[in-house]
Amino acid sequence: MILAIDVASGEKPLEELVSGAISALPENDKINLILVGNEKSISQALSKKKYDHNRVDIRHSDEIISMDESPANAIKHKKNASVLLAARLVKDKEVDGFFSPGNTGATLAAALTEIGRLKGVMRPPLISTLPKLGGEFCMLDMGANVDCTPDYMAQFAVMGRVFAKRYLKIENPRVGLLNIGEEDSKGNANTKKVFERLQKMKKINFIGNVEPNDMLKSDAADVVVADGFDGNIVLKTIEGTASLVVNMLKTEVKKNPVSVMGGLMMKPVFNSLKSQLSSDSYGSAILLGLNGGAFVGHGKTSGVGVKNAVLNMYKFLENKVNEKIAKELFDSGAKRRIF
Amino acid sequence: MILAIDVASGEKPLEELVSGAISALPENDKINLILVGNEKSISQALSKKKYDHNRVDIRHSDEIISMDESPANAIKHKKNASVLLAARLVKDKEVDGFFSPGNTGATLAAALTEIGRLKGVMRPPLISTLPKLGGEFCMLDMGANVDCTPDYMAQFAVMGRVFAKRYLKIENPRVGLLNIGEEDSKGNANTKKVFERLQKMKKINFIGNVEPNDMLKSDAADVVVADGFDGNIVLKTIEGTASLVVNMLKTEVKKNPVSVMGGLMMKPVFNSLKSQLSSDSYGSAILLGLNGGAFVGHGKTSGVGVKNAVLNMYKFLENKVNEKIAKELFDSGAKRRIF
Repeated sequence: MILAIDVASGEKPLEELVSGAISALPENDKINLILVGNEKSISQALSKKKYDHNRVDIRHSDEIISMDESPANAIKHKKNASVLLAARLVKDKEVDGFFSPGNTGATLAAALTEIGRLKGVMRPPLISTLPKLGGEFCMLDMGANVDCTPDYMAQFAVMGRVFAKRYLKIENPRVGLLNIGEEDSKGNANTKKVFERLQKMKKINFIGNVEPNDMLKSDAADVVVADGFDGNIVLKTIEGTASLVVNMLKTEVKKNPVSVMGGLMMKPVFNSLKSQLSSDSYGSAILLGLNGGAFVGHGKTSGVGVKNAVLNMYKFLENKVNEKIAKELFDSGAKRRIF
Repeated sequence: MILAIDVASGEKPLEELVSGAISALPENDKINLILVGNEKSISQALSKKKYDHNRVDIRHSDEIISMDESPANAIKHKKNASVLLAARLVKDKEVDGFFSPGNTGATLAAALTEIGRLKGVMRPPLISTLPKLGGEFCMLDMGANVDCTPDYMAQFAVMGRVFAKRYLKIENPRVGLLNIGEEDSKGNANTKKVFERLQKMKKINFIGNVEPNDMLKSDAADVVVADGFDGNIVLKTIEGTASLVVNMLKTEVKKNPVSVMGGLMMKPVFNSLKSQLSSDSYGSAILLGLNGGAFVGHGKTSGVGVKNAVLNMYKFLENKVNEKIAKELFDSGAKRRIF
């Protein structure tokens, strides 16, 4: 399997991203890489590393779409930007999937315009795995689409279930709807409609509304369906709260010598916690429902983050999640795109 | 100032809530209390305590609205439920405000039907203070209203600013709009409309969109305006994440003896963190824009929580937040209720 990695448009230095990407190779000998970015810089970064030269190729691009550019505009005028080249490699079947830690809007736009949607898919949603007590679950849409209709969200439910089955290896995943109360009648005008729609779909194992506080406990849903606005709000609130708690801890620890000592002794604990909650573990998301793999990374993805993304992409593509989605959407009775 | 406390309908035992309420009295000699609930149980709880008998009265109620009852139904059929009696004391001007840690929907309904809205107020929002790094900010609506129109949310902005000025003592509070991106054009159909509306209001010091992760940092907005659905999602995600992080820490600490020891040495740190994040500090919210004070507590409000609520109610009512809201709404140019 060949994967394309945009090493040019993240916030971290290209050298760190190149080094992270190739560090995935010894862990899985079925993965080959095409690194997209400035050829000279990539070659320089590679020259300092030991790796199997047959497994790594370079595709040159001198343009990048920066974090604060308008995605629509940039996609139109920077035809050879690294993220677009990476997505085009998927379209041209040179690779099976691509990853970019750059401008999220541009990465989504590149994936949609270059790779395109599976037959029947209305709005490809971003899915992400999130930590809960003693495990993980997945949630979609994490922010690719706002103002989602019940039709879109019925498709999300089907897609999320396929993802949970094949990627998270959960036998009969329970699907919940993100809401502000557990009772059937809770929510706003849209979640009420979505609830009714999901309840009518016999094959998705719908367990009803799920509140965000319960979602993070161990016994909650395996798949949480949400409008992309709400999903993104949840994602950013989790990120902000985790960071706030850790910072509060640091501030408190410094207040007296005994806790400073205690804090030092707990350093491995903090490191483990940090890695469980970091965007390098949970910061990359997958755009589901396309004719190929599209992985979207957090801007601050580190070398370790790229390595994880490469290994996860393999897992996602090897398990043929998108192929299965095409079939299940057809079987589920969810309304499909017909144009 | 006299405050009514519904000690009957929380999740904690009546005795704990009674004890918590009267423990506020020595800290502020201007507060008197009316405790609402079963007279015999309250008398028994009080008989074990030392307090100034002239400052505490009891109002008997034998009915409670339980946590899982439908608010609309319960309000209609349980005319003498403790929460309704407490709200009615505000309406009858026997007290200045009431607090209930019971069924949130029922508390809101009791406040709306018994106390009623200030002239011009469309939808009274729930406001709450939340912790951020090195301080606090306030956010509204935390869940009283879903499907909020730009008109409602323009009023929320005015009300939130008055609250931040008079209750949090911030000179010229900065108002932000909860959104999934900072740029002016970000968001869903409704936040885009609200953004335009807030931008036109000259007097509210609108600073633009605020993302939830930034909101919890020290330099973000003082007032965050949100639709009640989104506000409630944020509140419950903060609660769930804080609890997840603390539980992950506990799990990790147990994994080796050094960190167990470190954990013991850090116990004061954890306790301080717990109190900074607990629902007893941040779990009570105020329904703004009514003809009296209405405080809504978390179901699991403890004795300490009731004590905090009593002291905060005094601060809120003493600073005449609602009275000032009536005036500012009139001056702000925000559309007002005219029926």
